[in-house]
Amino acid sequence: MSEATPESGLESGTVYLVGSGPGDPELLTVKAKRLLENADVVLHDKLPGPKIIEALPEDRREDVGKRAGGERTPQSEINERLVELAEDGKSVVRLKGGDSFVFGRGGEEAEYLADHGVPFEVVPAVTSAVAAPAVAGIPVTHRDHASSVSFVTGHEDPTKEESAVDWAALAATGGTIVVLMGVGRLPDYTAALLEAGMDPTTPVGLVERGTWPGQTVATGTLETIVDVRDEEDISPPAVTVIGDVAGTRDAVVEFLQNESDDAGAGV
Amino acid sequence: MSEATPESGLESGTVYLVGSGPGDPELLTVKAKRLLENADVVLHDKLPGPKIIEALPEDRREDVGKRAGGERTPQSEINERLVELAEDGKSVVRLKGGDSFVFGRGGEEAEYLADHGVPFEVVPAVTSAVAAPAVAGIPVTHRDHASSVSFVTGHEDPTKEESAVDWAALAATGGTIVVLMGVGRLPDYTAALLEAGMDPTTPVGLVERGTWPGQTVATGTLETIVDVRDEEDISPPAVTVIGDVAGTRDAVVEFLQNESDDAGAGV
Ligand SMILES: C[S@@+](CC[C@H](N)C(=O)[O-])C[C@H]1O[C@@H](n2cnc3c(N)ncnc32)[C@H](O)[C@@H]1O
Ligand SMILES: C[S@@+](CC[C@H](N)C(=O)[O-])C[C@H]1O[C@@H](n2cnc3c(N)ncnc32)[C@H](O)[C@@H]1O
Repeated sequence: MSEATPESGLESGTVYLVGSGPGDPELLTVKAKRLLENADVVLHDKLPGPKIIEALPEDRREDVGKRAGGERTPQSEINERLVELAEDGKSVVRLKGGDSFVFGRGGEEAEYLADHGVPFEVVPAVTSAVAAPAVAGIPVTHRDHASSVSFVTGHEDPTKEESAVDWAALAATGGTIVVLMGVGRLPDYTAALLEAGMDPTTPVGLVERGTWPGQTVATGTLETIVDVRDEEDISPPAVTVIGDVAGTRDAVVEFLQNESDDAGAGV
Repeated sequence: MSEATPESGLESGTVYLVGSGPGDPELLTVKAKRLLENADVVLHDKLPGPKIIEALPEDRREDVGKRAGGERTPQSEINERLVELAEDGKSVVRLKGGDSFVFGRGGEEAEYLADHGVPFEVVPAVTSAVAAPAVAGIPVTHRDHASSVSFVTGHEDPTKEESAVDWAALAATGGTIVVLMGVGRLPDYTAALLEAGMDPTTPVGLVERGTWPGQTVATGTLETIVDVRDEEDISPPAVTVIGDVAGTRDAVVEFLQNESDDAGAGV
C-alpha cells in the first residue's frame, strides 16, 4: 500500500507518530533519530525542546504549534495536514514531546489517520512523567513506598462539577501521583488532595524542564509546595510528583550525576 | 571524584542505572546504546529481551537475574556487586527492562549506591507500561476517554488484608489502569474491579512481549478477558490495559503498521 524508501527504511505515504522524549537529544530513541533524519517532513510544536528542534533541517520541518496569529493550531488542522502530506506520497513524522500517547493526542491522530485510510506507525518514547522525576532522583514507584503511580492532567479546574479528574480517588490509591500541565493549578489540586485527607507532610517535587539545559528541581510538602513554586519561580513545562518517593531525592542527590554535568540543573 | 574515559564519555567508578526500553533494540535511547557499547561491565537480567542482551559482548556482561541454582538473585547481592565493581574503578551499566524506575527497583539501587558513596547517573527509558499498549494501537490517555492513567503491580493477592493495592480506588479514578506483572492474578484483580462497580463491558487489552519478535495482542472485556487470556495462551511478560482506550485498537488496527512489519505480531 506504500512504497519503501530503501536507504532510510521509511515508507512513503505513511505517518510516524513519534515521541521525542523529555528534551535531551540523547534520550531520543535510536528509531526516532533515524526517522527524524530521513523523513520527508516533520510536523512539530515547541515541547520537544530547542536542542531537538534546532537539529532538524529547516526545509523539512513544519511548526504546527502556533498559527500566524499566535494562537494554538486546532487539532483538526494538524490532522488534515497529516493526511494531505501522506496522500501526497510523503513520509511524515508527527513529533510530540515525551511520548505521543501520554497526554499527547496521539490517540486522536491515530484514529483520524485510520478513518482516512492512511497507514501509520507508533514509535513509543521516554515520557517526561517518568523521566523528569527520575533525573531529579525520584523513582515514580518504589517497593517500600508506592505500588502504583498515576499520571494525571492538572489543567482542569478541580472545583468544577464536570471535572474529569477525581482527586479523592487518586489520593485513595495510596500510590505516587504525577501531575502534568499542573503548574498553574497547583493550589487547586493540592487543596483538593488535602481535603481528601492526604497527609499535609506528604513530600512533593517539582521538576521543570527535566533533561533540558535549564532543568530546575524544587521540593516541599503538600502544604508548602505552592510557596516553594513561587519562591523558585517554577514555570511550565514542569511535572509535580506527589508521594513518599519524592522524599528519596534528598537521600541520593549528593551522588546523583544527572545534576552535576552539562544538564546544568538548578536547585 | 571519578576519572573520565575520554572516548566514551563514561566515568570510571560510576554506575549508570539504564533502562533498555520494551525490547526492540531500536527503542533503546541513543544514550543507552552509547553506554552499553562502552561500559566496562553490564549487569542485566532477562527482561530487556534476547535481541538487546545478545548484542552485548559476552566478556563484558553479567547475568544477575538468576543464581546458579536457578532461583532469583537477591537484590542485596546485586547492590553489593554494583558497589564492588564501582569501587574497583569500573564504569558499570545496570540494565533493566523498560524504565529502571517503573517497577524496576532502580530507586532501591540508587539509595544503596548513595549510601555507599558511589556516584551514579539515571538514564530514563521507554517503559513497557506505555509502549506495549502503544504498539498495539492503544493510547494510555485520550482526551475523550481518560484524563489519567495508573500503572500498578498485579503480583499481589488482592484478597489479602495487607495488599498495598487499592483496586476500588483505582476503579474510582475513572482513568486507564495498566497492570504490570499481572498475567497470573488476572482473575483476582478483574474480580476486585467488578466488585468495586466497574462496568463489566469495559474494554481490556493484553499485550505480551510488546515490540519483541513474538508480540501478541488479545482483547476482551473485564468480564471475558480471563477466558481470552486462556484461549490465546497469554504468558508473561505482558501488560493488561483496562479502560475505554483499549477499545481504540479495533478502530485503528487495520492501518497500524507496527504489526505488519518484522515485529511479527500476533492476532
Ligand atoms: C501536553 S503534555 C505532553 C506530555 C508528553 N506527551 C510526555 O509524555 O511527556 C505537556 C506536559 O508535559 C510535561 N513535560 C513535558 N516535557 C517536560 C520536561 N522536559 N520536564 C518537565 N515536564 C515536562 C509538563 O507537565 C507539560 O505541561
Ligand atoms: C518487574 S516489571 C518491570 C517493568 C519495567 N521496568 C518497565 O518499565 O517496563 C516486569 C513487567 O513489565 C512488563 N513488561 C516488561 N516488558 C514488557 C514487554 N515487552 N511487553 C509487555 N510487558 C512487558 C510485564 O508486565 C512484566 O511482568
